[in-house]
Amino acid sequence: MREFDEKSVTAAVLARMDDCQDARFKQVMTSLVTHLHDFVRDVKLTEAEWITAIQFLTDTGKMCSDKRQEFILLSDTLGVSILVITINNPADGGTTDSTVLGPYYWEGAPELPLGANLAVGVKGEPTYYSGRVLSNDGSPIAGAILDVWSGDGEGTYDMQMEGDVGMKARGRIRTDAQGRYSFRSIKPEFYPVPTDGPVGRMLNKMGRHPMRPGHIHMIVSAVGHHAVTTHLFAAGSQYIDSDAVFGVKESLITPFAKHPAGTAPDGTKLDVPFYTVNYDFRLRKG
Amino acid sequence: MREFDEKSVTAAVLARMDDCQDARFKQVMTSLVTHLHDFVRDVKLTEAEWITAIQFLTDTGKMCSDKRQEFILLSDTLGVSILVITINNPADGGTTDSTVLGPYYWEGAPELPLGANLAVGVKGEPTYYSGRVLSNDGSPIAGAILDVWSGDGEGTYDMQMEGDVGMKARGRIRTDAQGRYSFRSIKPEFYPVPTDGPVGRMLNKMGRHPMRPGHIHMIVSAVGHHAVTTHLFAAGSQYIDSDAVFGVKESLITPFAKHPAGTAPDGTKLDVPFYTVNYDFRLRKG
Repeated sequence: MREFDEKSVTAAVLARMDDCQDARFKQVMTSLVTHLHDFVRDVKLTEAEWITAIQFLTDTGKMCSDKRQEFILLSDTLGVSILVITINNPADGGTTDSTVLGPYYWEGAPELPLGANLAVGVKGEPTYYSGRVLSNDGSPIAGAILDVWSGDGEGTYDMQMEGDVGMKARGRIRTDAQGRYSFRSIKPEFYPVPTDGPVGRMLNKMGRHPMRPGHIHMIVSAVGHHAVTTHLFAAGSQYIDSDAVFGVKESLITPFAKHPAGTAPDGTKLDVPFYTVNYDFRLRKG
Repeated sequence: MREFDEKSVTAAVLARMDDCQDARFKQVMTSLVTHLHDFVRDVKLTEAEWITAIQFLTDTGKMCSDKRQEFILLSDTLGVSILVITINNPADGGTTDSTVLGPYYWEGAPELPLGANLAVGVKGEPTYYSGRVLSNDGSPIAGAILDVWSGDGEGTYDMQMEGDVGMKARGRIRTDAQGRYSFRSIKPEFYPVPTDGPVGRMLNKMGRHPMRPGHIHMIVSAVGHHAVTTHLFAAGSQYIDSDAVFGVKESLITPFAKHPAGTAPDGTKLDVPFYTVNYDFRLRKG
Protein backbone atom coordinates (compact mmCIF):
# COMPACT_ATOMS: atom_id res chain seq x y z
CA MET A 1 0.00 0.00 0.00
CA ARG A 2 1.47 3.33 -0.93
CA GLU A 3 -1.37 5.80 -1.33
CA PHE A 4 -3.64 6.79 1.49
CA ASP A 5 -6.62 8.97 2.05
CA GLU A 6 -7.30 10.65 5.37
CA LYS A 7 -8.77 7.44 6.77
CA SER A 8 -6.55 4.71 5.32
CA VAL A 9 -3.32 6.40 6.38
CA THR A 10 -3.94 5.24 9.95
CA ALA A 11 -4.10 1.58 8.92
CA ALA A 12 -0.95 2.10 6.84
CA VAL A 13 1.00 3.43 9.84
CA LEU A 14 -0.18 0.56 12.02
CA ALA A 15 0.71 -2.01 9.35
CA ARG A 16 4.32 -0.80 9.46
CA MET A 17 4.61 -2.40 12.91
CA ASP A 18 4.14 -5.91 11.55
CA ASP A 19 7.77 -6.69 12.39
CA CYS A 20 7.68 -5.16 15.87
CA GLN A 21 9.09 -7.70 18.35
CA ASP A 22 7.74 -6.08 21.52
CA ALA A 23 4.06 -6.90 21.85
CA ARG A 24 3.40 -4.34 24.59
CA PHE A 25 5.19 -1.53 22.71
CA LYS A 26 3.18 -2.42 19.61
CA GLN A 27 -0.05 -2.29 21.63
CA VAL A 28 0.80 1.11 23.14
CA MET A 29 1.91 2.63 19.83
CA THR A 30 -1.14 1.24 18.01
CA SER A 31 -3.46 2.96 20.47
CA LEU A 32 -1.38 6.16 20.45
CA VAL A 33 -1.33 6.46 16.65
CA THR A 34 -5.05 5.67 16.42
CA HIS A 35 -6.02 8.31 18.98
CA LEU A 36 -3.58 10.88 17.58
CA HIS A 37 -5.00 10.47 14.07
CA ASP A 38 -8.58 10.53 15.39
CA PHE A 39 -7.78 13.80 17.16
CA VAL A 40 -6.38 15.37 13.97
CA ARG A 41 -9.44 14.25 11.99
CA ASP A 42 -11.94 15.28 14.70
CA VAL A 43 -10.75 18.89 14.82
CA LYS A 44 -9.54 19.03 11.19
CA LEU A 45 -6.25 20.39 12.46
CA THR A 46 -4.97 23.15 10.17
CA GLU A 47 -1.41 23.37 8.90
CA ALA A 48 -0.89 26.54 10.97
CA GLU A 49 -2.13 24.76 14.11
CA TRP A 50 0.14 21.82 13.35
CA ILE A 51 3.26 23.99 13.17
CA THR A 52 2.14 25.80 16.37
CA ALA A 53 1.95 22.39 18.07
CA ILE A 54 5.42 21.43 16.78
CA GLN A 55 6.82 24.70 18.14
CA PHE A 56 5.03 24.23 21.49
CA LEU A 57 6.51 20.74 21.94
CA THR A 58 9.95 21.98 20.91
CA ASP A 59 9.77 24.90 23.39
CA THR A 60 8.60 22.52 26.11
CA GLY A 61 11.63 20.30 25.50
CA LYS A 62 13.98 23.28 25.52
CA MET A 63 12.55 24.43 28.89
CA CYS A 64 13.49 21.13 30.59
CA SER A 65 16.63 21.16 32.73
CA ASP A 66 18.02 19.49 35.85
CA LYS A 67 15.68 21.67 37.92
CA ARG A 68 12.67 21.92 35.64
CA GLN A 69 10.59 19.24 33.94
CA GLU A 70 8.15 21.05 31.67
CA PHE A 71 6.78 17.85 30.08
CA ILE A 72 5.82 16.51 33.53
CA LEU A 73 4.17 19.87 34.19
CA LEU A 74 2.28 19.50 30.92
CA SER A 75 1.20 15.98 31.88
CA ASP A 76 0.19 17.21 35.36
CA THR A 77 -1.86 20.16 34.12
CA LEU A 78 -3.65 18.09 31.47
CA GLY A 79 -4.68 15.56 34.13
CA VAL A 80 -2.59 12.79 32.55
CA SER A 81 -0.33 12.25 35.57
CA ILE A 82 -3.18 11.80 38.05
CA LEU A 83 -4.96 9.55 35.56
CA VAL A 84 -1.89 7.27 35.26
CA ILE A 85 -1.51 7.23 39.06
CA THR A 86 -5.18 6.47 39.63
CA ILE A 87 -5.17 3.63 37.10
CA ASN A 88 -2.06 2.06 38.61
CA ASN A 89 -3.01 2.64 42.25
CA PRO A 90 -6.74 2.09 42.41
CA ALA A 91 -8.48 3.10 45.62
CA ASP A 92 -9.19 -0.07 47.58
CA GLY A 93 -11.25 1.39 50.37
CA GLY A 94 -8.86 1.42 53.23
CA THR A 95 -5.32 2.08 52.14
CA THR A 96 -4.02 5.62 51.64
CA ASP A 97 -4.72 7.17 48.24
CA SER A 98 -1.88 8.12 45.91
CA THR A 99 -1.43 11.44 44.22
CA VAL A 100 1.12 13.15 41.97
CA LEU A 101 4.84 13.08 42.78
CA GLY A 102 5.31 16.60 41.43
CA PRO A 103 8.59 18.08 40.21
CA TYR A 104 10.22 18.81 43.59
CA TYR A 105 11.09 15.39 44.98
CA TRP A 106 14.77 15.17 45.93
CA GLU A 107 16.09 11.72 46.66
CA GLY A 108 18.29 11.21 49.71
CA ALA A 109 16.77 13.50 52.35
CA PRO A 110 18.44 12.91 55.74
CA GLU A 111 16.90 10.50 58.23
CA LEU A 112 15.93 12.50 61.31
CA PRO A 113 14.80 11.34 64.76
CA LEU A 114 11.14 11.18 65.71
CA GLY A 115 9.85 14.62 66.57
CA ALA A 116 12.59 16.40 64.59
CA ASN A 117 12.04 19.84 63.12
CA LEU A 118 12.38 19.47 59.33
CA ALA A 119 11.97 23.19 58.80
CA VAL A 120 14.71 24.80 60.89
CA GLY A 121 15.22 28.29 59.48
CA VAL A 122 12.36 27.91 57.02
CA LYS A 123 9.63 30.58 56.82
CA GLY A 124 6.15 29.48 57.86
CA GLU A 125 3.76 28.73 60.73
CA PRO A 126 4.99 25.89 62.99
CA THR A 127 3.05 22.68 62.53
CA TYR A 128 3.33 19.42 64.47
CA TYR A 129 2.53 16.33 62.40
CA SER A 130 1.85 12.98 64.06
CA GLY A 131 0.01 9.71 63.54
CA ARG A 132 0.65 6.10 62.69
CA VAL A 133 1.54 3.93 59.73
CA LEU A 134 -0.72 0.89 59.60
CA SER A 135 -1.00 -2.21 57.49
CA ASN A 136 -4.32 -2.71 55.68
CA ASP A 137 -5.34 -5.16 58.42
CA GLY A 138 -5.00 -2.31 60.95
CA SER A 139 -1.79 -3.52 62.60
CA PRO A 140 0.85 -0.83 63.21
CA ILE A 141 4.04 -1.01 61.14
CA ALA A 142 7.29 -0.44 63.05
CA GLY A 143 10.19 0.99 61.04
CA ALA A 144 8.06 2.41 58.24
CA ILE A 145 9.65 5.43 56.52
CA LEU A 146 7.96 8.75 55.76
CA ASP A 147 10.03 10.62 53.18
CA VAL A 148 8.59 14.12 53.62
CA TRP A 149 8.99 17.34 51.59
CA SER A 150 7.22 20.63 51.09
CA GLY A 151 7.78 24.24 50.16
CA ASP A 152 8.13 26.88 52.85
CA GLY A 153 5.16 28.69 54.36
CA GLU A 154 4.92 30.80 51.21
CA GLY A 155 4.92 27.79 48.89
CA THR A 156 8.53 28.13 47.74
CA TYR A 157 10.60 24.93 47.51
CA ASP A 158 14.33 24.81 48.30
CA MET A 159 15.04 24.06 44.61
CA GLN A 160 13.41 27.37 43.70
CA MET A 161 15.16 29.49 46.33
CA GLU A 162 17.87 31.97 45.35
CA GLY A 163 21.36 30.49 45.45
CA ASP A 164 22.27 26.91 46.29
CA VAL A 165 20.53 26.58 49.64
CA GLY A 166 20.61 22.76 49.79
CA MET A 167 17.76 20.72 51.23
CA LYS A 168 15.10 22.61 53.19
CA ALA A 169 11.85 21.29 54.68
CA ARG A 170 12.81 17.71 53.83
CA GLY A 171 13.57 14.67 55.92
CA ARG A 172 12.94 10.98 56.47
CA ILE A 173 11.20 9.88 59.66
CA ARG A 174 11.02 6.26 60.86
CA THR A 175 8.04 4.96 62.85
CA ASP A 176 8.57 3.55 66.34
CA ALA A 177 7.61 0.09 67.61
CA GLN A 178 3.95 1.17 67.81
CA GLY A 179 4.02 2.47 64.23
CA ARG A 180 3.97 6.09 65.40
CA TYR A 181 5.61 9.02 63.61
CA SER A 182 5.96 12.67 64.54
CA PHE A 183 7.82 15.65 63.15
CA ARG A 184 7.63 19.42 63.04
CA SER A 185 7.50 21.44 59.84
CA ILE A 186 5.48 24.41 58.54
CA LYS A 187 1.87 24.81 57.42
CA PRO A 188 1.98 24.55 53.65
CA GLU A 189 0.43 27.33 51.59
CA PHE A 190 -0.99 27.43 48.06
CA TYR A 191 1.45 28.34 45.29
CA PRO A 192 1.56 28.52 41.49
CA VAL A 193 3.17 25.90 39.29
CA PRO A 194 5.88 27.53 37.14
CA THR A 195 4.18 29.85 34.64
CA ASP A 196 7.14 31.34 32.77
CA GLY A 197 7.26 28.58 30.15
CA PRO A 198 5.07 27.08 27.42
CA VAL A 199 2.76 25.35 29.94
CA GLY A 200 2.13 28.66 31.72
CA ARG A 201 1.15 30.20 28.39
CA MET A 202 -1.13 27.24 27.70
CA LEU A 203 -2.88 27.58 31.08
CA ASN A 204 -3.38 31.28 30.46
CA LYS A 205 -4.88 30.65 27.04
CA MET A 206 -7.14 27.97 28.56
CA GLY A 207 -8.45 30.56 31.05
CA ARG A 208 -7.02 28.60 34.01
CA HIS A 209 -5.17 29.65 37.17
CA PRO A 210 -1.88 27.87 37.96
CA MET A 211 -2.43 27.38 41.70
CA ARG A 212 -2.06 24.32 43.88
CA PRO A 213 -3.73 24.30 47.34
CA GLY A 214 -1.48 23.98 50.41
CA HIS A 215 -0.07 20.46 50.76
CA ILE A 216 2.86 18.53 52.17
CA HIS A 217 4.33 15.60 50.23
CA MET A 218 5.38 12.21 51.46
CA ILE A 219 6.34 8.79 50.17
CA VAL A 220 5.38 6.27 52.85
CA SER A 221 7.10 2.90 52.59
CA ALA A 222 7.58 -0.21 54.68
CA VAL A 223 9.02 -3.68 54.21
CA GLY A 224 6.40 -6.11 52.91
CA HIS A 225 4.07 -3.32 51.75
CA HIS A 226 3.39 -1.24 48.65
CA ALA A 227 4.83 2.27 49.05
CA VAL A 228 2.46 5.18 48.51
CA THR A 229 3.34 8.56 46.99
CA THR A 230 0.89 11.05 48.40
CA HIS A 231 0.16 14.49 49.95
CA LEU A 232 -1.73 15.79 52.93
CA PHE A 233 -3.84 18.79 51.92
CA ALA A 234 -4.68 21.50 54.43
CA ALA A 235 -8.46 21.55 54.86
CA GLY A 236 -9.89 24.90 53.81
CA SER A 237 -6.83 25.90 51.79
CA GLN A 238 -7.56 28.25 48.93
CA TYR A 239 -7.79 26.44 45.55
CA ILE A 240 -8.60 23.10 47.21
CA ASP A 241 -11.47 22.76 44.73
CA SER A 242 -9.40 23.66 41.68
CA ASP A 243 -5.89 22.22 42.06
CA ALA A 244 -4.04 23.04 38.81
CA VAL A 245 -2.77 19.44 38.63
CA PHE A 246 -5.99 17.67 39.77
CA GLY A 247 -4.16 16.03 42.69
CA VAL A 248 -6.73 16.53 45.48
CA LYS A 249 -8.51 13.47 46.90
CA GLU A 250 -11.04 13.84 49.73
CA SER A 251 -9.26 11.23 51.82
CA LEU A 252 -6.07 13.30 51.79
CA ILE A 253 -7.64 16.52 53.08
CA THR A 254 -6.97 16.87 56.78
CA PRO A 255 -7.66 19.55 59.38
CA PHE A 256 -4.79 21.73 60.59
CA ALA A 257 -5.92 22.49 64.19
CA LYS A 258 -4.80 25.97 65.23
CA HIS A 259 -3.47 26.60 68.74
CA PRO A 260 -2.56 29.91 70.42
CA ALA A 261 1.06 30.68 71.31
CA GLY A 262 2.18 28.53 74.23
CA THR A 263 3.57 25.07 74.84
CA ALA A 264 3.82 22.91 71.75
CA PRO A 265 3.32 19.10 71.75
CA ASP A 266 7.10 18.59 72.06
CA GLY A 267 7.32 20.91 75.08
CA THR A 268 8.77 23.84 73.13
CA LYS A 269 7.50 27.26 74.28
CA LEU A 270 6.28 29.06 71.16
CA ASP A 271 5.50 32.79 71.07
CA VAL A 272 3.47 32.37 67.88
CA PRO A 273 0.37 30.29 67.15
CA PHE A 274 1.00 26.78 65.87
CA TYR A 275 -0.91 23.93 64.22
CA THR A 276 -1.29 20.22 64.86
CA VAL A 277 -2.15 17.55 62.31
CA ASN A 278 -2.93 13.94 63.07
CA TYR A 279 -3.14 11.47 60.21
CA ASP A 280 -2.80 7.68 59.93
CA PHE A 281 -1.43 6.16 56.73
CA ARG A 282 -2.48 2.67 55.66
CA LEU A 283 -0.31 0.59 53.31
CA ARG A 284 -1.34 -2.40 51.27
CA LYS A 285 0.52 -5.63 52.01
CA GLY A 286 2.39 -7.32 49.20
CA MET B 1 -15.46 19.03 41.92
CA ARG B 2 -12.21 17.99 43.57
CA GLU B 3 -12.04 14.23 43.56
CA PHE B 4 -11.96 12.17 40.42
CA ASP B 5 -11.87 8.57 39.42
CA GLU B 6 -10.19 7.40 36.26
CA LYS B 7 -13.23 8.38 34.19
CA SER B 8 -14.39 11.62 35.80
CA VAL B 9 -10.95 13.23 35.72
CA THR B 10 -11.40 13.87 32.00
CA ALA B 11 -14.57 15.89 32.54
CA ALA B 12 -12.80 17.79 35.34
CA VAL B 13 -9.95 18.83 33.05
CA LEU B 14 -12.37 19.92 30.32
CA ALA B 15 -14.47 21.91 32.83
CA ARG B 16 -11.40 23.98 33.69
CA MET B 17 -11.67 25.57 30.26
CA ASP B 18 -14.99 27.23 31.04
CA ASP B 19 -13.30 30.64 30.98
CA CYS B 20 -11.34 30.02 27.78
CA GLN B 21 -11.94 32.96 25.42
CA ASP B 22 -10.73 31.27 22.25
CA ALA B 23 -13.44 28.93 20.96
CA ARG B 24 -11.20 27.16 18.45
CA PHE B 25 -8.41 26.62 21.00
CA LYS B 26 -10.97 25.23 23.42
CA GLN B 27 -12.30 22.87 20.75
CA VAL B 28 -8.81 21.62 19.87
CA MET B 29 -7.75 21.17 23.51
CA THR B 30 -11.02 19.44 24.39
CA SER B 31 -10.48 16.86 21.68
CA LEU B 32 -6.77 16.50 22.54
CA VAL B 33 -7.38 15.91 26.26
CA THR B 34 -10.22 13.49 25.53
CA HIS B 35 -8.13 11.39 23.14
CA LEU B 36 -5.04 11.54 25.35
CA HIS B 37 -7.00 10.28 28.36
CA ASP B 38 -8.72 7.62 26.25
CA PHE B 39 -5.31 6.42 25.10
CA VAL B 40 -4.01 6.17 28.69
CA ARG B 41 -7.12 4.25 29.76
CA ASP B 42 -7.16 1.99 26.69
CA VAL B 43 -3.64 0.69 27.26
CA LYS B 44 -3.62 1.13 31.06
CA LEU B 45 -0.35 3.00 30.74
CA THR B 46 2.01 2.04 33.56
CA GLU B 47 3.96 4.54 35.63
CA ALA B 48 7.23 3.23 34.13
CA GLU B 49 5.84 3.71 30.60
CA TRP B 50 4.69 7.21 31.52
CA ILE B 51 8.16 8.28 32.65
CA THR B 52 9.65 6.67 29.52
CA ALA B 53 7.27 8.80 27.45
CA ILE B 54 8.25 11.95 29.39
CA GLN B 55 11.93 11.18 28.76
CA PHE B 56 11.29 10.46 25.06
CA LEU B 57 9.54 13.80 24.57
CA THR B 58 12.29 15.62 26.50
CA ASP B 59 15.01 13.96 24.40
CA THR B 60 13.09 14.82 21.23
CA GLY B 61 13.00 18.49 22.27
CA LYS B 62 16.69 18.48 23.11
CA MET B 63 17.52 17.03 19.67
CA CYS B 64 15.89 19.99 17.89
CA SER B 65 18.24 22.67 16.52
CA ASP B 66 18.46 25.13 13.64
CA LYS B 67 19.29 22.21 11.37
CA ARG B 68 17.20 19.44 12.88
CA GLN B 69 13.50 19.27 13.76
CA GLU B 70 12.97 15.98 15.58
CA PHE B 71 9.30 16.73 16.44
CA ILE B 72 8.50 17.20 12.74
CA LEU B 73 10.31 13.92 12.10
CA LEU B 74 8.17 12.29 14.80
CA SER B 75 5.03 13.73 13.21
CA ASP B 76 6.19 12.58 9.77
CA THR B 77 7.02 9.02 10.81
CA LEU B 78 3.75 8.60 12.71
CA GLY B 79 1.78 9.66 9.63
CA VAL B 80 0.48 12.81 11.33
CA SER B 81 2.08 15.25 8.87
CA ILE B 82 0.65 13.58 5.76
CA LEU B 83 -2.73 13.31 7.49
CA VAL B 84 -2.78 17.06 8.23
CA ILE B 85 -1.71 17.81 4.65
CA THR B 86 -4.31 15.49 3.15
CA ILE B 87 -7.11 16.97 5.28
CA ASN B 88 -6.16 20.53 4.35
CA ASN B 89 -5.42 19.84 0.69
CA PRO B 90 -7.99 17.29 -0.40
CA ALA B 91 -7.44 15.67 -3.78
CA ASP B 92 -9.89 17.26 -6.21
CA GLY B 93 -9.31 15.07 -9.22
CA GLY B 94 -7.24 17.24 -11.44
CA THR B 95 -4.90 19.46 -9.48
CA THR B 96 -1.50 18.26 -8.27
CA ASP B 97 -1.49 16.36 -4.96
CA SER B 98 0.35 17.73 -1.95
CA THR B 99 2.83 15.85 0.17
CA VAL B 100 5.12 16.54 3.13
CA LEU B 101 7.42 19.57 3.21
CA GLY B 102 10.12 17.59 5.02
CA PRO B 103 12.89 19.10 7.13
CA TYR B 104 15.20 20.30 4.34
CA TYR B 105 13.36 23.25 2.81
CA TRP B 106 15.56 26.35 2.74
CA GLU B 107 13.81 29.59 1.92
CA GLY B 108 15.39 31.97 -0.56
CA ALA B 109 16.90 29.67 -3.19
CA PRO B 110 18.21 31.73 -6.15
CA GLU B 111 16.02 32.30 -9.19
CA LEU B 112 17.73 30.66 -12.15
CA PRO B 113 16.98 30.89 -15.88
CA LEU B 114 14.92 28.24 -17.67
CA GLY B 115 17.06 25.21 -18.39
CA ALA B 116 19.57 26.02 -15.63
CA ASN B 117 21.61 23.31 -13.97
CA LEU B 118 20.65 23.36 -10.27
CA ALA B 119 23.17 20.69 -9.43
CA VAL B 120 26.51 22.06 -10.62
CA GLY B 121 29.20 20.15 -8.74
CA VAL B 122 26.66 17.86 -7.08
CA LYS B 123 27.11 14.07 -7.22
CA GLY B 124 24.45 12.17 -9.16
CA GLU B 125 23.16 11.11 -12.55
CA PRO B 126 22.20 14.06 -14.79
CA THR B 127 18.45 14.49 -15.17
CA TYR B 128 16.53 16.93 -17.33
CA TYR B 129 13.16 17.97 -15.90
CA SER B 130 10.54 19.69 -18.03
CA GLY B 131 6.82 20.21 -18.33
CA ARG B 132 4.17 22.85 -17.78
CA VAL B 133 2.31 24.54 -14.97
CA LEU B 134 -1.41 24.64 -15.75
CA SER B 135 -4.47 26.08 -14.11
CA ASN B 136 -7.21 23.62 -13.21
CA ASP B 137 -9.07 24.62 -16.39
CA GLY B 138 -6.08 23.42 -18.41
CA SER B 139 -4.77 26.85 -19.41
CA PRO B 140 -1.00 27.34 -19.07
CA ILE B 141 0.23 29.70 -16.33
CA ALA B 142 3.01 32.08 -17.34
CA GLY B 143 5.35 33.25 -14.57
CA ALA B 144 4.57 30.38 -12.19
CA ILE B 145 7.43 29.57 -9.80
CA LEU B 146 8.88 26.13 -9.10
CA ASP B 147 10.93 26.29 -5.90
CA VAL B 148 12.94 23.06 -6.27
CA TRP B 149 15.19 21.15 -3.85
CA SER B 150 16.63 17.68 -3.39
CA GLY B 151 19.55 15.81 -1.95
CA ASP B 152 22.42 14.74 -4.18
CA GLY B 153 22.45 11.47 -6.13
CA GLU B 154 23.23 9.64 -2.87
CA GLY B 155 20.33 11.24 -0.98
CA THR B 156 22.44 13.71 1.01
CA TYR B 157 21.10 17.27 1.34
CA ASP B 158 23.37 20.33 1.43
CA MET B 159 22.34 20.92 5.07
CA GLN B 160 23.76 17.51 5.95
CA MET B 161 27.05 17.87 4.06
CA GLU B 162 30.34 18.33 5.90
CA GLY B 163 31.22 21.98 6.46
CA ASP B 164 29.18 25.01 5.47
CA VAL B 165 28.68 24.20 1.78
CA GLY B 166 25.78 26.62 1.24
CA MET B 167 22.86 25.84 -1.07
CA LYS B 168 23.23 22.84 -3.37
CA ALA B 169 20.65 21.30 -5.73
CA ARG B 170 18.23 24.14 -5.07
CA GLY B 171 16.78 26.86 -7.27
CA ARG B 172 13.68 28.70 -8.36
CA ILE B 173 12.54 28.40 -11.97
CA ARG B 174 9.89 30.62 -13.59
CA THR B 175 7.61 29.34 -16.37
CA ASP B 176 7.64 31.02 -19.78
CA ALA B 177 4.67 32.55 -21.62
CA GLN B 178 3.43 29.06 -22.53
CA GLY B 179 3.66 27.88 -18.91
CA ARG B 180 6.72 25.76 -19.64
CA TYR B 181 9.53 25.02 -17.22
CA SER B 182 12.82 23.16 -17.58
CA PHE B 183 15.90 22.61 -15.47
CA ARG B 184 18.69 20.13 -14.97
CA SER B 185 19.44 18.41 -11.69
CA ILE B 186 20.26 14.86 -10.56
CA LYS B 187 18.23 11.67 -10.27
CA PRO B 188 17.20 11.48 -6.62
CA GLU B 189 17.99 8.33 -4.70
CA PHE B 190 16.43 6.75 -1.61
CA TYR B 191 17.90 7.80 1.73
CA PRO B 192 17.23 7.34 5.46
CA VAL B 193 15.60 9.97 7.64
CA PRO B 194 17.96 10.85 10.54
CA THR B 195 18.20 7.81 12.81
CA ASP B 196 20.67 8.98 15.48
CA GLY B 197 17.97 10.47 17.72
CA PRO B 198 14.88 9.39 19.67
CA VAL B 199 12.78 8.95 16.50
CA GLY B 200 15.40 6.62 15.02
CA ARG B 201 15.27 4.51 18.20
CA MET B 202 11.46 4.49 18.00
CA LEU B 203 11.49 3.31 14.37
CA ASN B 204 13.93 0.56 15.27
CA LYS B 205 11.77 -0.61 18.17
CA MET B 206 8.74 -0.53 15.87
CA GLY B 207 10.56 -2.86 13.45
CA ARG B 208 10.55 -0.21 10.70
CA HIS B 209 13.19 0.92 8.21
CA PRO B 210 13.91 4.67 8.00
CA MET B 211 14.05 4.96 4.19
CA ARG B 212 12.40 7.38 1.83
CA PRO B 213 12.22 6.49 -1.88
CA GLY B 214 14.00 8.77 -4.36
CA HIS B 215 12.16 12.08 -4.80
CA ILE B 216 12.69 15.72 -5.71
CA HIS B 217 10.81 18.44 -3.81
CA MET B 218 9.06 21.51 -5.15
CA ILE B 219 6.66 24.20 -4.07
CA VAL B 220 4.77 25.31 -7.17
CA SER B 221 3.08 28.70 -6.89
CA ALA B 222 1.41 31.22 -9.18
CA VAL B 223 -0.58 34.42 -8.78
CA GLY B 224 -4.30 33.73 -8.41
CA HIS B 225 -3.74 30.06 -7.52
CA HIS B 226 -3.23 27.89 -4.44
CA ALA B 227 0.43 26.91 -4.07
CA VAL B 228 1.20 23.19 -3.78
CA THR B 229 4.01 21.63 -1.73
CA THR B 230 4.85 18.36 -3.38
CA HIS B 231 7.45 15.85 -4.64
CA LEU B 232 8.06 13.93 -7.80
CA PHE B 233 8.94 10.31 -6.97
CA ALA B 234 11.14 8.25 -9.29
CA ALA B 235 9.08 5.32 -10.58
CA GLY B 236 10.62 2.03 -9.51
CA SER B 237 12.70 3.58 -6.72
CA GLN B 238 13.44 1.23 -3.85
CA TYR B 239 11.10 1.80 -0.86
CA ILE B 240 8.42 3.41 -3.05
CA ASP B 241 5.90 1.09 -1.36
CA SER B 242 7.10 1.82 2.18
CA ASP B 243 8.13 5.50 2.45
CA ALA B 244 9.08 6.07 6.12
CA VAL B 245 6.97 9.26 6.17
CA PHE B 246 3.99 7.98 4.13
CA GLY B 247 4.44 10.73 1.53
CA VAL B 248 3.98 8.73 -1.69
CA LYS B 249 0.90 9.39 -3.82
CA GLU B 250 0.40 7.50 -7.09
CA SER B 251 -0.14 10.72 -9.02
CA LEU B 252 3.32 11.95 -8.01
CA ILE B 253 5.23 8.87 -9.26
CA THR B 254 6.75 9.59 -12.62
CA PRO B 255 9.05 7.68 -14.98
CA PHE B 256 12.70 8.73 -15.23
CA ALA B 257 13.46 7.80 -18.87
CA LYS B 258 17.08 6.64 -19.21
CA HIS B 259 19.16 7.68 -22.25
CA PRO B 260 22.66 6.57 -23.28
CA ALA B 261 25.56 9.01 -23.18
CA GLY B 262 25.24 11.55 -26.00
CA THR B 263 23.47 14.82 -26.67
CA ALA B 264 21.21 16.01 -23.85
CA PRO B 265 17.96 17.96 -24.42
CA ASP B 266 19.84 21.25 -23.88
CA GLY B 267 22.47 20.32 -26.51
CA THR B 268 25.15 19.43 -23.95
CA LYS B 269 27.34 16.48 -24.94
CA LEU B 270 27.31 14.06 -22.01
CA ASP B 271 29.74 11.14 -21.70
CA VAL B 272 27.50 9.44 -19.13
CA PRO B 273 23.89 8.23 -19.39
CA PHE B 274 21.21 10.73 -18.40
CA TYR B 275 17.50 10.80 -17.58
CA THR B 276 14.55 12.87 -18.71
CA VAL B 277 11.38 13.56 -16.75
CA ASN B 278 8.29 15.27 -18.08
CA TYR B 279 5.58 16.30 -15.66
CA ASP B 280 2.78 18.86 -15.76
CA PHE B 281 1.64 20.51 -12.52
CA ARG B 282 -1.94 21.72 -12.14
CA LEU B 283 -2.86 24.43 -9.61
CA ARG B 284 -6.27 25.23 -8.24
CA LYS B 285 -7.55 28.75 -8.89
CA GLY B 286 -8.43 30.93 -5.92
